Amino acid sequence: MKTKAIFYHAGCPVCVAAERNVASALDPQRFELEVVHLGQEKGRVSEAERTGVKSVPALVLDNQAYHINFGASLDVLK
Amino acid sequence: MKTKAIFYHAGCPVCVAAERNVASALDPQRFELEVVHLGQEKGRVSEAERTGVKSVPALVLDNQAYHINFGASLDVLK
Repeated sequence: MKTKAIFYHAGCPVCVAAERNVASALDPQRFELEVVHLGQEKGRVSEAERTGVKSVPALVLDNQAYHINFGASLDVLK
Repeated sequence: MKTKAIFYHAGCPVCVAAERNVASALDPQRFELEVVHLGQEKGRVSEAERTGVKSVPALVLDNQAYHINFGASLDVLK
């Protein structure tokens, strides 16, 4: 059975592009990935909070929340 | 060809156990994962810095650094 993985974000385009790299790098054999835009799906903020999400972007693996901070690449600013 | 993924950490046992979950969740078909304990391999700190790593644990995917902050589960403190 696949483990549920949820990637929560709030839409910042540069950040999302970068941080989705982490989510999309997960093994599809083992994880079922769902991507949730909390800005558009506000009803799911409380669900995210219950799992321990304090900020976005965050990746929840097996009910544990990992906050991902992308050290922005200068390349995206050029 | 597989993409290089490097997980840098510094040995905090609880954190490492949690954060390695992210590293080990990567798709092995696409990523070749290396785990580096910077406390034991100090010679690699400058390499990590050059990739943009500011703190550990961090995951470098395709030369981009992602800092992973695990919101510690209360379960591990019980």
